[in-house]
Amino acid sequence: MKIAVDAMGGDHAPGVVVDGAVQAARDLGLELILVGRRHVIEAELSAYDTAGLSLQIHHAEKTVAMDEHNPAAAIKASKDSSMVLGMETVRRGEAEAFVTAGHSGAALAAALFRLGRIRGIKRPALSTVFPSQTPQGHCFLLDIGANADCKPEYLLQFAVMGAIYSERVLGVARPRVAIVSNGEEEGKGNQLVQDTVPLLKASGLNFVGNAEGKDIPWGIADVIVTDGFTGNVIIKLSEGVSRLLMDILKTELTSRSMSKVGALLAKPAFDAVRGRLDYREYGGAPLLGIDGVVIVGHGRSDALAIRNAIRVAAQTVENGVLDAIKQGLVEQEV
Amino acid sequence: MKIAVDAMGGDHAPGVVVDGAVQAARDLGLELILVGRRHVIEAELSAYDTAGLSLQIHHAEKTVAMDEHNPAAAIKASKDSSMVLGMETVRRGEAEAFVTAGHSGAALAAALFRLGRIRGIKRPALSTVFPSQTPQGHCFLLDIGANADCKPEYLLQFAVMGAIYSERVLGVARPRVAIVSNGEEEGKGNQLVQDTVPLLKASGLNFVGNAEGKDIPWGIADVIVTDGFTGNVIIKLSEGVSRLLMDILKTELTSRSMSKVGALLAKPAFDAVRGRLDYREYGGAPLLGIDGVVIVGHGRSDALAIRNAIRVAAQTVENGVLDAIKQGLVEQEV
Repeated sequence: MKIAVDAMGGDHAPGVVVDGAVQAARDLGLELILVGRRHVIEAELSAYDTAGLSLQIHHAEKTVAMDEHNPAAAIKASKDSSMVLGMETVRRGEAEAFVTAGHSGAALAAALFRLGRIRGIKRPALSTVFPSQTPQGHCFLLDIGANADCKPEYLLQFAVMGAIYSERVLGVARPRVAIVSNGEEEGKGNQLVQDTVPLLKASGLNFVGNAEGKDIPWGIADVIVTDGFTGNVIIKLSEGVSRLLMDILKTELTSRSMSKVGALLAKPAFDAVRGRLDYREYGGAPLLGIDGVVIVGHGRSDALAIRNAIRVAAQTVENGVLDAIKQGLVEQEV
Repeated sequence: MKIAVDAMGGDHAPGVVVDGAVQAARDLGLELILVGRRHVIEAELSAYDTAGLSLQIHHAEKTVAMDEHNPAAAIKASKDSSMVLGMETVRRGEAEAFVTAGHSGAALAAALFRLGRIRGIKRPALSTVFPSQTPQGHCFLLDIGANADCKPEYLLQFAVMGAIYSERVLGVARPRVAIVSNGEEEGKGNQLVQDTVPLLKASGLNFVGNAEGKDIPWGIADVIVTDGFTGNVIIKLSEGVSRLLMDILKTELTSRSMSKVGALLAKPAFDAVRGRLDYREYGGAPLLGIDGVVIVGHGRSDALAIRNAIRVAAQTVENGVLDAIKQGLVEQEV
């Protein structure tokens, strides 16, 4: 299987991307196309023993900046960027999937621009694997920012796509689906939630009802749908609250003479918590609704995260997620 | 100053409420009216030395349950509940404020039913003091659940009321006001946020722009406004994420033989974190927009939290928050 990788995308690109790609080519036996500035990629590759690995380079002159404020305009202005040319490799059938740890909004714009939506899909969604006390240790959350304002039909489609991805790639049998709301009881919710619940109930999905904020990390469901505004607040707030808690705890541990020893002894536990919340294990999450397999990794990705994002891309292709979504849309008549 | 207290409201009522009220009467020199079942309150009071304290009882036959699913209907059906009769004491001028740790939705319904809105206020808001790295250690967040669907003018009024409360009761000079959004850059946001930002900019408030989820606990602003759907998700998700993190950390600390000693030595730090996130210090938050001072405490309130909620009520009255809001509305012409 051939997968294209955005060598220039992410906070630590191209170094960690090339590193992760070499690992993926070696460990997973994949053929990879590294998209980006040829001489930069060649210089990075020269540090590795790549004998026997299938690593092509596809030159792209430009890179979309991680702090780009207007991603749609940036994509239109950078048709020779690694992001756009990477999507192109999928469109032309040269690669079966594209992996990028670059700007997620720009990835969405480039995917819409070059690959378009799956026929029948009203809006694509950004998604993420979110830490939660489910048996598998996480839930699948979408939309996390593609669509700030949503309609009920969008959320229904997100639920259908999320359930298929959860089942086929994350290995959850008959995933439980919930919708974010301001109360767990039926009838709670803003107008959007109240209008979406009947659609979810009638969908044939394993819909388990409303998920309050506190339920999301507590394993209430395997797939959690929400509008892109609320979803974005959820992932960023979780990051903020975790950082604040860990910071306070560390300050407290090091400022008390008695507990300095405690801090040292507690370090393995801290490391374990970090491991549990570690996005690197999951690697990346798909742009669902796009007519092609595109996996977006975390901007902070290191080599392990890149390697795992490439693995996720391969699993998404192998397990026929795209065709399953097309089939699922027919069944839902949405 | 005379303040009415819902003796029956909260998970641990009436025990902790009577305890907290006795402390407030003694420490703060306030006259209190305990609203609830007379014989129950008398039995609780008999455990304390109340000589010299001003503690009246106002009998109320019924109590609104903490898990009431339809608070508005419950309030209409329970006109002789401690919640409704407590609001009555304020309406009739027998008390200057009412404090309850009962069902917040029911408190809102009872307040609207008996006290009504301030003239010119379109919607009242539920609010909370939220842990954040501001100089004062918290920010003031509203709406956290009264209005799942909002209009721009509601959010503007929430901002005006929040800024007045922050300045007069929380002691923040010229509080910085932000609006929750899915991106910090101007122009980001759902339609509601995009329509509200121009109003906030023109308001004369110290508006500092958009607050992303991660910024909320990091001290970006002193007053943070949002719709009641998003606000509710924010407070409940923070609770869920904190609990998950602390749980993982504790499990890790106690499951590793090496770190058992660490756990013991780290305990003071854990306690300090709990202290920093402790809602009890703030006691309660006002129902803003109601034509009367009503403070809603956390359902889990203990005696200290009740005592502090009563203190907050007294400060709200002393600092003329109600008149300042009425004046502020005239100035904003909203």
